[in-house]
Parts: sequence; structure tokens; C-alpha cells
Amino acid sequence: MKALVYGGPGVKSWTDVPDPVIVNPTDAIVQVDTTTICGTDLHILGGDVPAVQVGRILGHEGVGTITEVGASVTNFTVGDRVIISCIKSCGHCTNCTAGLFSHCLGDEGQSGIGWIFGHLIDGTQADYVRVPYADNSLHKLPDGVSDAEAVMLSDILPTGFEIGVQYGQVKPGDVVAVIGAGPVGLAAMATVGLYGAATVIAIDLDQNRLEQAREFGATDTVLSGAADWKERVLALTDGSGVDVAIEAVGIPQTFTMATEIVRPGGHVANVGVHGKPVELHLETLWIQNINISMGLVNANTTPMLLKLVAQKKIPADKLATHHFTFDQMLDAYDTFGRAAETKALKVVITRS
Amino acid sequence: MKALVYGGPGVKSWTDVPDPVIVNPTDAIVQVDTTTICGTDLHILGGDVPAVQVGRILGHEGVGTITEVGASVTNFTVGDRVIISCIKSCGHCTNCTAGLFSHCLGDEGQSGIGWIFGHLIDGTQADYVRVPYADNSLHKLPDGVSDAEAVMLSDILPTGFEIGVQYGQVKPGDVVAVIGAGPVGLAAMATVGLYGAATVIAIDLDQNRLEQAREFGATDTVLSGAADWKERVLALTDGSGVDVAIEAVGIPQTFTMATEIVRPGGHVANVGVHGKPVELHLETLWIQNINISMGLVNANTTPMLLKLVAQKKIPADKLATHHFTFDQMLDAYDTFGRAAETKALKVVITRS
Amino acid sequence: MKALVYGGPGVKSWTDVPDPVIVNPTDAIVQVDTTTICGTDLHILGGDVPAVQVGRILGHEGVGTITEVGASVTNFTVGDRVIISCIKSCGHCTNCTAGLFSHCLGDEGQSGIGWIFGHLIDGTQADYVRVPYADNSLHKLPDGVSDAEAVMLSDILPTGFEIGVQYGQVKPGDVVAVIGAGPVGLAAMATVGLYGAATVIAIDLDQNRLEQAREFGATDTVLSGAADWKERVLALTDGSGVDVAIEAVGIPQTFTMATEIVRPGGHVANVGVHGKPVELHLETLWIQNINISMGLVNANTTPMLLKLVAQKKIPADKLATHHFTFDQMLDAYDTFGRAAETKALKVVITRS
Amino acid sequence: MKALVYGGPGVKSWTDVPDPVIVNPTDAIVQVDTTTICGTDLHILGGDVPAVQVGRILGHEGVGTITEVGASVTNFTVGDRVIISCIKSCGHCTNCTAGLFSHCLGDEGQSGIGWIFGHLIDGTQADYVRVPYADNSLHKLPDGVSDAEAVMLSDILPTGFEIGVQYGQVKPGDVVAVIGAGPVGLAAMATVGLYGAATVIAIDLDQNRLEQAREFGATDTVLSGAADWKERVLALTDGSGVDVAIEAVGIPQTFTMATEIVRPGGHVANVGVHGKPVELHLETLWIQNINISMGLVNANTTPMLLKLVAQKKIPADKLATHHFTFDQMLDAYDTFGRAAETKALKVVITRS
Repeated sequence: MKALVYGGPGVKSWTDVPDPVIVNPTDAIVQVDTTTICGTDLHILGGDVPAVQVGRILGHEGVGTITEVGASVTNFTVGDRVIISCIKSCGHCTNCTAGLFSHCLGDEGQSGIGWIFGHLIDGTQADYVRVPYADNSLHKLPDGVSDAEAVMLSDILPTGFEIGVQYGQVKPGDVVAVIGAGPVGLAAMATVGLYGAATVIAIDLDQNRLEQAREFGATDTVLSGAADWKERVLALTDGSGVDVAIEAVGIPQTFTMATEIVRPGGHVANVGVHGKPVELHLETLWIQNINISMGLVNANTTPMLLKLVAQKKIPADKLATHHFTFDQMLDAYDTFGRAAETKALKVVITRS
Repeated sequence: MKALVYGGPGVKSWTDVPDPVIVNPTDAIVQVDTTTICGTDLHILGGDVPAVQVGRILGHEGVGTITEVGASVTNFTVGDRVIISCIKSCGHCTNCTAGLFSHCLGDEGQSGIGWIFGHLIDGTQADYVRVPYADNSLHKLPDGVSDAEAVMLSDILPTGFEIGVQYGQVKPGDVVAVIGAGPVGLAAMATVGLYGAATVIAIDLDQNRLEQAREFGATDTVLSGAADWKERVLALTDGSGVDVAIEAVGIPQTFTMATEIVRPGGHVANVGVHGKPVELHLETLWIQNINISMGLVNANTTPMLLKLVAQKKIPADKLATHHFTFDQMLDAYDTFGRAAETKALKVVITRS
Repeated sequence: MKALVYGGPGVKSWTDVPDPVIVNPTDAIVQVDTTTICGTDLHILGGDVPAVQVGRILGHEGVGTITEVGASVTNFTVGDRVIISCIKSCGHCTNCTAGLFSHCLGDEGQSGIGWIFGHLIDGTQADYVRVPYADNSLHKLPDGVSDAEAVMLSDILPTGFEIGVQYGQVKPGDVVAVIGAGPVGLAAMATVGLYGAATVIAIDLDQNRLEQAREFGATDTVLSGAADWKERVLALTDGSGVDVAIEAVGIPQTFTMATEIVRPGGHVANVGVHGKPVELHLETLWIQNINISMGLVNANTTPMLLKLVAQKKIPADKLATHHFTFDQMLDAYDTFGRAAETKALKVVITRS
Repeated sequence: MKALVYGGPGVKSWTDVPDPVIVNPTDAIVQVDTTTICGTDLHILGGDVPAVQVGRILGHEGVGTITEVGASVTNFTVGDRVIISCIKSCGHCTNCTAGLFSHCLGDEGQSGIGWIFGHLIDGTQADYVRVPYADNSLHKLPDGVSDAEAVMLSDILPTGFEIGVQYGQVKPGDVVAVIGAGPVGLAAMATVGLYGAATVIAIDLDQNRLEQAREFGATDTVLSGAADWKERVLALTDGSGVDVAIEAVGIPQTFTMATEIVRPGGHVANVGVHGKPVELHLETLWIQNINISMGLVNANTTPMLLKLVAQKKIPADKLATHHFTFDQMLDAYDTFGRAAETKALKVVITRS
């Protein structure tokens, strides 16, 4: 089969590799019909994730059709159309029984983390993929949900919702600022209404992205390059700061911004993937009764979000800005890699 | 009357000042019978809290007897023996109605903070003190609780419990590490059993303090100077880290220690008062699903803790290591200021 | 002044009474500009609430203008336009500091309950009303909110939201059934989206009310007279039952209906005011892991709901179906008393 | 092998039956070393649980040794000593992923309930038992925990803790009443300290049981036959009622008692298995802001409780009052069936 194979920092190829096979009785093999590219894939290609070995097939998002199931898979059968969650979960380790699927310990000497596709095992940017713990890691695709909508449920929508909105403990009437109007920030904005946010402030350096943000639920926008950005944000609150600040970029400056605009008793929810330490100003924050959360998605809300996408209550389709076929995989990477220029949010790559 | 007056960085005196008077109908005047000194008082004298003006009477902890009440005080009358909470709360501002008494906005142009004694208004290291919002800021002292026990309820016990144990979301069966076995760390250890912690690890540089910690509930101790301190802590867990790490020192190193020993899905509760920023290693922590809390005590658990102190379920008396009379106020400061040497936890200063 | 005075079971009059005066320094006197009638007022007139004494002025909902404040009122001044909450709260008793304002113990020998207007003290169906604990029991009326919208915030909207939606623990994606499409049931439907309910099923005997329900957020309706009503409800779920069943009628049959359609692990939120015991089928329910809640509104969400009404995110105005002036008070009672016939939801009665 | 077989209402025998075999790859076969009898087994023999068919092996509690595992079992191997949880959980159904293991939907057309042993499939009062979903339904027995202690973790301890203490939302400082000092009531008392209850009131008709209750954590006892039982309970509170009332009997009178002593804002946690409906006095309770919970154990706290039993922080051994061998199974039933007379709490039955 064909797959996007990591060849070391800066090197990737769309090339022939052997088909995956069932290894454990809890596995399924899925023919990938639609996949997409995540910012994390670019990090891997940048050499930032040393755990990824040369030869690894990348990708942790996908929609497909089951072609084979292991002996103990009971929820799915061949022919089922499914969403592949970016998080595998064994369902029986200490972390899984506590609902912390992101840190599934698994069996078989796998590392203690839920994200393994395109990381510790071969991923979804391929004709076929082996899915461990299929009963817990796949979701049946209902009628009326397109592949382009569904692939947003592999990672981006649950990440924005769980790590941004839920970890941020958004509650009815809140003023919520989302710093960074890229895909995951927009996913947070698109779902923050599920907890009744009254005001949703999109903050970004790019005016174009701020315009887009309004389509995903932002009620107000603030250009972060402006000298008075902070005053503008505070003017949208009662003066004490926002109830919840969601960081969706992943650099020290945006994290610090989040801590500067949050009210006493408020929440900073870090969603961004960081490559460097940040300076936390405890000398002023220790007295502020704020809470700082962070983490990898558990994907336990995927079935709920899927239901709302099916009801057209979440504009998943608007995240899909560019479309490619599998044989254009490298073009898709190119377009996504130049997102500022191409205005790409998520690129959708489909079996032709 | 006599009071401990702040004279600028490094300068203090036990001197004559005018008696306080009722200013608002919600005030009470309390004759202070017992007070104590907090590490924060030393910070103020070090010049670290610029909001404190020269001439301010210090102290935010105390037990006393009401000598006068304002026209709208209904819960208390002259002669009542009371615990003075370090947090005043008006009971009607946005923050108070949400239970965030630490950030009581108050009235009369007072700053938006609950802690005002010995900070923004005159404090408790004096013969008499004016207590604003007396109905919400005082607690009747029941029979059977000594002044020395009661004064621990002004600040130290609720701080350790609320900011350490509750903000840390300790739950039954948890492994909890408390970094720093000073008064507030010991207060956390003394109350962590209220949420069923199974293992309580005291971590400190001082072997003497670790010995003391066992009397407050520590089940295990680790000397933090040891090269293998981290391995020793992890050996007391299932290998993934502690469920909750409580920071009770207030310096960058101890905060970093807390983030290094916490398990995925765990909590870091910062209790320490910090004077400098800390480096937060988001490049490794972003994926760890940890939560970091911090803040000033709300003191909403004081009545509950008082009940348990009265039942002798919390060893409040053991925190009182040294005793002085009011006219020995400067000696008390000296002893408390050299705590490492004097082995002082809390100094109790009583009207003679 | 004029007021609606209770004359014993079945007897009421719109008659001259003395103006109220300030009794405690925490009181305010409010000129009532707009009031309304609650189903509870009809219960009182039916003789069902023996605590209400002959001579009592009825009414616990109102919008008005402050004409006098006591010495310790700090949040409000003469001339302020305010919403009168149906719940008074002293802000300092055990229940108030725990947020249980509905059971405010107050001072002065008042009974331990937050609802006193038109019950234990004179109420709001009058030209003027004395408001105890004004700082905690009034809310400033912002520009852009009409009296008719605002008066829905005295009781009906917070009751539907707090006792129905919040006590029912509605969460994103839930299927919620509301039994009873009267004012309080509609208030629950109008606010259930604040916690992201995916499906909102209105259940009522009256087809007309079901039509109205769709304007308040119902996504589906079921006529409860139908033999297969239960099957119709279950068909809107995954077959296991609704996540939350909100009872908003107050009779045994509707309470039992709620317990019959809730899923294992689900919630029954009783909002209705009951006059008789109900039979609870613990012989089948004990194993179902359901939760049953009930209670009087705390009104702690009123400021938040007011903000959303001001943003036009809650259709408060649609609850106001009939309008009267103060001198038509008895007509207003007549229209509201025959609601099934007049199709009245809430009658709005305004100073002419 | 030998097993205790249900022969219809009132009929049971200790008789020869075929050995169990692996049916699904997720099964394990466990040699039962120790089992016990539950009040529910007596209910079944009374004919109260019609789902139990003639020929069924009874029992849902046990400790044993694994003799065979299915192909996809990864956590356990032959020879492991294990606690058999009374709740099976598949780990992948809607209810299991939400932590509601009590209502595990399972696969294979099994009914939607977690409790199947000795109910829908053969149970643990036998030489061997087939355990479905072994990875999720067994717990390794650590050194230092006896079989008699361990068998209390199959059902009684997690039931008392989860359905009594956790569902009752006990919090530090609470006054908790436990109505019924039988095994499950004692299990609640033995674990209520994990949430810091200050006062634990045991209520029972039997003075002997009240004496026993003190060994399990009761701080006060009230004989429920006394005319003034209610006044005695209220005298142990601040006069408003208990914070949490745990019903651990299962008859209408005790349920009503629980609702009569709970304070406004408090919790009634029903643990008892009921055979008849109860009258719920909503005409007085609707305004009381109480919460009523009920349910089947999820057994998700079993590993945590096991840890505390191993630390000797829960007196599990004291529940084991009578000891038998397998060939005395009918004697064990006789002793347990006459508990009032024999003073049996739990009978422990061990392979000889």
C-alpha cells in the first residue's frame, strides 16, 4: 500500500510499504478513506518529537472502512464505516478506568500514553492502518455526517472542547478569551457555547483569522499586535478580567498573555503544544486564585460531539478549507505547511 | 493602646497608638487576647509588600473579645470571644456571592482583596483592632478551644487545607507529597486526612522538621537534599508519580520539584508565597494533564475546621511551639525570624 | 398605598394599607413599577400555605425604583432601578456562606427560609415594598432590559434554571425531558441550552402549550395524554431513557412519569410545588443509579441570567403574554387563574 | 465440581455440576478459594428476583486463583490470586466509558447491568467460576491481605462507600447518620472517614448492633425504637438536621426516617435493596433542597479500598464474624439467615 513515511527530520515520502496485519485479538484493520494533517505532524517533521522513528507512517486522524477485525473485537464488523480516534484506550488500565484515556498504559510494553498513531506505531496517512483496542478507539460513522466533518472528530474538535472548554471549566455566562484562532482555537470557540459562554473573544495577530473566528462563535475580536490589546480585552469584561483564557498557540508569549487577562478565581486552559519553557509569574499570580490546566485529549467526548455534528450544531465542515486526494498527499502537506499564506485551516485528503 | 507598627523596610516598633473606632455600621472593635506572627509579616518587614504603608499596624491573626459593635452587626455582641479571620468579606459583592471571599471587593473604595488586616488597614498585633464586616469576618470561640489552638484558625489551618488540600483536589486513597514542612505545610498534612489521603510524604531539607511532620500526619519523609530524593518519592507511588504535590515553601526550586513528581492527571497545589517568577516546563508538561492551582485562602472552611479542632481531630496545639506576652512582641518576632535555629513553628503572643 | 391583601382562603382585595418603613439598617424601600403573579400566590389563596397570615400583602416578584435605603446599605442608592429577587439573603448565616440562599436563616427571629415576600413579610403586589438585606436581595436593572423581561428574573427564570437545569446536572449532548410546559417548565427549556442539551423534549397534556414550547427551545414534543407517550419519549433517546427528566407540574402522576423515563445514571429534577406525597418506586429504582433533586431557588444565578437576557440570548419577553395596570390587579388574577383558557403564561402588571 | 444451586423459591442445594469453561476470549476461569453470602442471595431464595432461573449457581463475592484465561486477557495469568468483583464491566460500552460500570451493557445479548454473577450467569458459591471481561472484573490480591478481608471487597465495602458515602456527597466536617447497622451500613461507617465526617451516628433497632457500630467508626448511636429517636439525632446536629442520611436497610420506614432527619441542602443516600414502593413526602420536601440518590455499586473504588485495607486503615476483618468450609455451605446459609440471633455480619466460607 501507499503511505506517508517519515524519513528523519525534514524528510517525508509518499511511498510503498507493506499492508498492516492484525497483531492482537483486540485489533482492527481500517481502510483509510479520509485523513488530514495536524500541526503535530509538522512538529515531528521538524525533528521535535524524537520518539518518532525513521520509517514511521505519520498521521493520527482518519475516517475509514473496517476490512478485518481481531477475535475479541465485538463492537465492530467488516464494512463498518468508522472515525479513528487519535487516542487508543485499552479500557482496563488504571488510567482508562479513571477516564484518563490520554494516558492509557495499554499492554504489550507500549508507553503510557493514549496517542500512539503516527508516533509510536504506524498512523493514518496511509491506505490502511492497524487500530489497537478497536472496541474503544473507533466510533461508528452515522448517516448524514460527511467524511470531512467526521475527520474533525479524530482530534481537533475533542481537543478544543476537552482541553480548552472543559479543562477551562467554562460555565454559563462566562467571558472566555481564546488566544490563537487556528484550527484548535476555532474548535474551542465552536464548542464553548455548550457551556453557555456569554462572550467569546478571539485574539490573534492575523485580522483574516479574526474574521473567520466570528463564523465559529467569536462574539468579539481583538488584534493581539495592537498596543492596547489587553485594555481592549478587559473592556469586554467587568474590569476584573476574563473568566477563562484558552491558550491555543503554544509559545511563551501567548501563555503569558493568558495569565495577564484572567480574573481572580479564573482559569487558564493551555491547549497549545509547547516546545520551550514559559515564565510563570507566581510573584503576582500566587494570590490570584487562578487555575492552570493542560493536557492531551482523552477523546471521551467524541461520541457526544459526533451527535452534535450530526445535528449540525457544530460547524465542523467549516474547518475543512482545502481538499486533496491521497496521491496529492505531498501537496496537502505543502498547503498546510504554508497556512498563513494559503489560509488553510484543515486540509482534507480523500481516497480518490 | 500599644501596637506593633511598621516603620518601613526593616523597621518595627511596639509603641503607643490611638485606639481604633467604629467607622462603618458593619464594624466591630475587638480586644486582642492572643495573636501570632506569619511569614508574610516578615515579608512585609523585608519591604516586599509595597502596598503596606509606614505607620501600619501589622498582623492578620488573632483571638479576642468584642468591646463594641456597629449598628448593623447582628451576629455578635459585646463580650463575645471570637476568632478573627485573616479574610474580611462583605458578603454581597460579586466575589463574595460566588464564595471567593479572598477577593472580596468590599465597599468604600477598598482594594479587591479579602486580606486587609496588617496590609491595607491596621492589624491584630495590637491591644485592639477594628474588624470590618464583623458578621462575616469573626467566628465565635466555643468552650474547650484554647486561644493557642484558635489562633491557628485565623490563617494557617484554613490556608493549608483550602489552598493545599482542597485546591489540590485530594481524594481518598491518594498519595500526597507536601514540599516544605513549615507551619503551612504542616497545616496541609494535618488536614489532608479529611479527604482520605493514603500516603502523605513530607519533603524538606531539614531532618528535624521531617521528624515533626510525622506528628502532623506524614506517613513518609524524604530529605530533599538527597541526590535521589525524586526516586525516593516515586518509590512511594506506583511509579507514575504522586496524585497531588503541595508546594509550601515559595521559591522556584520547590515549585519545579512539585511539577517533577506529579503523575499524569495529577495536581500541583501552590501554597507558598512567591517573590520571583518560576520556570514552568510546558515543553514536557503540556501533555501531562496536570493542573496547577494557587491562591489566597477564602477562609470559608474555618467554621468546619474549628469544629474539628474542638473535637481534637486536628492537632492545632502542636503548631504552637513558643509563647510570649504582648510586651515581649519584639522577642516573639526575633524567635520567629530565626525559626530554623529556634525550631519555632508558630509563636503565640498573649495579653498578660 | 394600594396593595393586594390576603384575607384568608379564597379572599383577596386591592386595598389601602400603610406605606412600609425602614425597620433595619440593611433594608431598602422600593416603589414597585412592575409585578406579576406566581402559581404559588394561587396556592396561598387556596389556603395551602398556612404560614401566610390574614392581612399579608402577597407577591414575591417585582421591578421597581428605590425610594429609601437603610444606614448600612452600600450597593444601592435612592433612584436606582432594581429587580427584586424572590429570595432574601443575609449573606452571613451558615446557609448563605454555603451559597444556600434559599434557606437563609437571617436574623431577628425570622424563619430559616429565603422566600419571605408575600409569605412571612409583606410582598410586592403593592405600591411600595420593604426589602430586607437590600445589598444581597436586589439587582440593578441595566439599560436595554424592559420591566417585562426583568420581572421574569425575580423567580421564574432562576427557578427553571437552578432547580431544573442545574440541579438536574444537564451536560452537553444530553437528552432532557421537561414535563409540564407552563411558565417554569418553559423557563427550564429556555435555559437548558446553557449546558448544551442536544435534545429537549417538552411533555404536556395541552397541544397548544407544546406549540409554545418550541419557541422556548423544545426540539421535540410529546402529548402526555397519548397511550404511547412513554414509547415516544424513549424513541428520542438511545433506548435507555432520557439523561435528565425535569418535573415542572407538581402532582404525583408527573413525578412518577419523570422516574419512568430516566436512564440508569440519570437525574430527576423536581421543580413543581407539591401538595401531596408521591409514591416512589424504590423496588425498581434502587438499582437504577438515579438521582432525585428538589428545592427552592437560591437565585444566585440571577445576575448571570440578567446578563444573558440583556444580550437577548434568553427569550424572557415571550413569557409575558398578558399586560395589566396596578388598578387591574384583580383582573390580572382572574386571567392568570384561568390560564388553561386564557393561554396566559405570565401576566405583567405595571404602575400606570 | 460442587456448587450452591438455586432450585426455585426456598430451594437450594450444594451439589455436583459441570465445571465452567471459557466461552469468550475475554473470560477467565477462577478456582474459588473463599466466598460469602449476601442479603441479596436470601432475596433470590425468597423468590424476589425472578430473573434468576432455576439451576443457577448463586453468589457474587469471592476470592480465588486463576486456572485458565481466554486469548485476549492480558492483565492476568494462571496462578494469580484475585478478588472477583461483583460487577463485570466490558470497558467499552457507553456506560463503562462513562464510569457507570454498574450498568455495563456488555456484549452477547447480556442484559444492561453490571451485576451478573449468581443472577444472570453462574456465580461464586462454587469450586470454579467463569469470569467475563476478566481484565476489568478481577483485582490482584496483594500480599498481606487475607482472604477474609479481601472477600469484603467484592461487594460490601465498595457498596457502602460508593452508594452510601460518595453518592451521599459526604464532605469534611459533616454529620452523617447511618440507618441500619448491618454489614452494608457498617461498611459505610467504616469508610465515611475518608471524606472527613466529623460525627457518625449509627441508628438501629438492636442495641447489640449499635455497640458493634462503634468499632466501625460510629461516634454516636441512637436506638430507633425510642420514641424520641428523632430528637436525639437532631440534638447531635446544629438543630437543622444531618448533612447526610444513609439508608442501609431497605424498607419504607427507614427510608422515611432518612428524609425526616436530613437538613435543608442535605443528602439522602439510599443503599438498601427495596422490595416495595415508599411514600416520598414531596409536599414538605419540595422546598428543602435535598438530594436523594440510590443505585448499584460501580466497584470503581475497589482498587483504592483494597489499598487502604492492605494499610489496615479499614477494619475489613471485623466484618467476618463466622467461618465455614465449602462443605458447610448450607450451615453458613443457616447462620447468615438467622443473623439477628447469631449476630452474624458476614460469614466467610473457605475451600478446605
